[in-house]
Amino acid sequence: MSNKTALLLIDFINSMDFDGGENLLQNTKEIVPDVKALKQEAKDNDVPVIYVNDNFGLWQDHVEDLIKDVKKGIGRPVIEELEPARDEYFILKPKHSGFYGTQLDILLRQLGIEQLIISGIAGDICTLFTANDAYMRGYHLWVPENVSASEYKEDNDNALRIIKRSLQANITSTKDFTIREFLDGKDK
Amino acid sequence: MSNKTALLLIDFINSMDFDGGENLLQNTKEIVPDVKALKQEAKDNDVPVIYVNDNFGLWQDHVEDLIKDVKKGIGRPVIEELEPARDEYFILKPKHSGFYGTQLDILLRQLGIEQLIISGIAGDICTLFTANDAYMRGYHLWVPENVSASEYKEDNDNALRIIKRSLQANITSTKDFTIREFLDGKDK
Amino acid sequence: MSNKTALLLIDFINSMDFDGGENLLQNTKEIVPDVKALKQEAKDNDVPVIYVNDNFGLWQDHVEDLIKDVKKGIGRPVIEELEPARDEYFILKPKHSGFYGTQLDILLRQLGIEQLIISGIAGDICTLFTANDAYMRGYHLWVPENVSASEYKEDNDNALRIIKRSLQANITSTKDFTIREFLDGKDK
Amino acid sequence: MSNKTALLLIDFINSMDFDGGENLLQNTKEIVPDVKALKQEAKDNDVPVIYVNDNFGLWQDHVEDLIKDVKKGIGRPVIEELEPARDEYFILKPKHSGFYGTQLDILLRQLGIEQLIISGIAGDICTLFTANDAYMRGYHLWVPENVSASEYKEDNDNALRIIKRSLQANITSTKDFTIREFLDGKDK
Repeated sequence: MSNKTALLLIDFINSMDFDGGENLLQNTKEIVPDVKALKQEAKDNDVPVIYVNDNFGLWQDHVEDLIKDVKKGIGRPVIEELEPARDEYFILKPKHSGFYGTQLDILLRQLGIEQLIISGIAGDICTLFTANDAYMRGYHLWVPENVSASEYKEDNDNALRIIKRSLQANITSTKDFTIREFLDGKDK
Repeated sequence: MSNKTALLLIDFINSMDFDGGENLLQNTKEIVPDVKALKQEAKDNDVPVIYVNDNFGLWQDHVEDLIKDVKKGIGRPVIEELEPARDEYFILKPKHSGFYGTQLDILLRQLGIEQLIISGIAGDICTLFTANDAYMRGYHLWVPENVSASEYKEDNDNALRIIKRSLQANITSTKDFTIREFLDGKDK
Repeated sequence: MSNKTALLLIDFINSMDFDGGENLLQNTKEIVPDVKALKQEAKDNDVPVIYVNDNFGLWQDHVEDLIKDVKKGIGRPVIEELEPARDEYFILKPKHSGFYGTQLDILLRQLGIEQLIISGIAGDICTLFTANDAYMRGYHLWVPENVSASEYKEDNDNALRIIKRSLQANITSTKDFTIREFLDGKDK
Repeated sequence: MSNKTALLLIDFINSMDFDGGENLLQNTKEIVPDVKALKQEAKDNDVPVIYVNDNFGLWQDHVEDLIKDVKKGIGRPVIEELEPARDEYFILKPKHSGFYGTQLDILLRQLGIEQLIISGIAGDICTLFTANDAYMRGYHLWVPENVSASEYKEDNDNALRIIKRSLQANITSTKDFTIREFLDGKDK
């Protein structure tokens, strides 16, 4: 019996053209292979993949325009590795949390989702606050430590520590725990 | 001194392929000329135009796909008259109210908006409930009676009566009151 | 097999000291016996009773103070008939809808509630907009027509018509349909 | 010219009867004198004081019952130092963030508040997530480092670091910055 699960990919579609973007890009590149593998594992297990991404000041819900635009930035190599397929869920968020001012919670309830796998950048901002909003809404969380990146590694570790302690989340690496095990509730 | 104002156009981008759609289409066609004139008047007065539209079960925030798709329905003539320009705000809503599960309120606050003009279909569903959510958030409302349509005219009138009484809204026809007057607070 | 159900009692704890309050009081008095009977039937069937009530400008979440205060108004006879027991849920709402700025949805999810019975005043304001917010969140609704009152009976009827059509709600009188039948899904 | 400001006191009314409560109590006692002084300074400057506090599983909005109840716990000495006056704002929150399922944002907008001073426990949970929800809603923040306590000091420091970096907050100690200076926008 499987727990209904979705994978959130947060803010990977990102120009990284801001102060500290170089650092974040460097740290993100290191996790991209594990994120790609996780996305593939999700697809293999029929776990829906939901991109939840900053709107970068666009308010027209035109996803292609946004992707085209942010690809002009230094983040392009990351985007090319993780580019969303046209039929994948893509939700624009105007602020830090994926739940604030978006249809994310409504979509998750419609899909019957009860637990979330969260991978994203930056771990100490958008992942952290999306994770708390998910926790307050009753979702069980797996935020694998090896698919989260921040501008500074120390801040990334601190955020994961808060996510583990305050949100009762599983932060085991995807190298030590599989989606199959998560679906089977092996971490409860 | 001008009150910061926006125009909401609700659910005009609509296939109308549902029970009662023929009726709604008929009643909508009658108001389209006034809606077009109102939209033009908004643009002439630098009042932002914000489409707030059902997502019709699409969760990818791809507005063009949605427009292309709903144009296959009987509502096409309405869409062609009121088609959004690429640079106009377009917000997808998953449910009746334009404020539920959307970035509408965040956008309005960012724009400094204090009062709204609302035109839409159906008047007794999405317009009514969007108007109340706007009222609860403190926006002053003008819901002109001649730019609202519903499946049944009696229901449209009833909804407008509720909007006027319960939401302290101005429902004067655009034939008797102008955006310029609304900007100048002439209805307060 | 029972559907998880709660009964909402909206704004009965009310001074009625406002324009139109006399009218609303008169119409409310007529439904009080049916509301009392419905509340008793809820208790007999272990259906939680949740008062959802205007805060009347008090922001301290002191329910007793509020009750004491509003009892000074002309609405006192209604309050005395429907006074909440100390151990009944009592949620203050600052605006029309019981879901806006309140913990109502969180409480309902914690209780596992899937469908709601709504009784309240005014039918064309707080009941109507609470019902839509409930519908958008996926709750199945029974808004019995004989336990709703408004300032004007015509407006009350119009609101019920919208609730029935737009929110797919059951509005059958409690004289013709019982909580037991609702629990058993007999209206689906 | 004064910026409209409020002081939030988060979760000080707390039994502390949980795992780690002894630690949190110890760290909270150390900040109580500074919190009391800050509260007094707020009152002297007509800055509204708003208690935002866990509901501890009570859903009846009876604040006195809650206070009486939590006073039975080990947190009593803290409560006695910071006990809310009957006429102070007191908002119950059901989850980590003071903005989730509460009327806090509605109250703040009604009061015209634009910036917040936040003091509370635990710094790495409820203060952190309340601060982000405030930031996303556009409030400028001062979270003085000497009036925040957590179970572990390292976690408290980490949370403050995130609050400073990710939420663009002022975290200067109240020993080095005054409410008067904050009102005058001296940190902008």
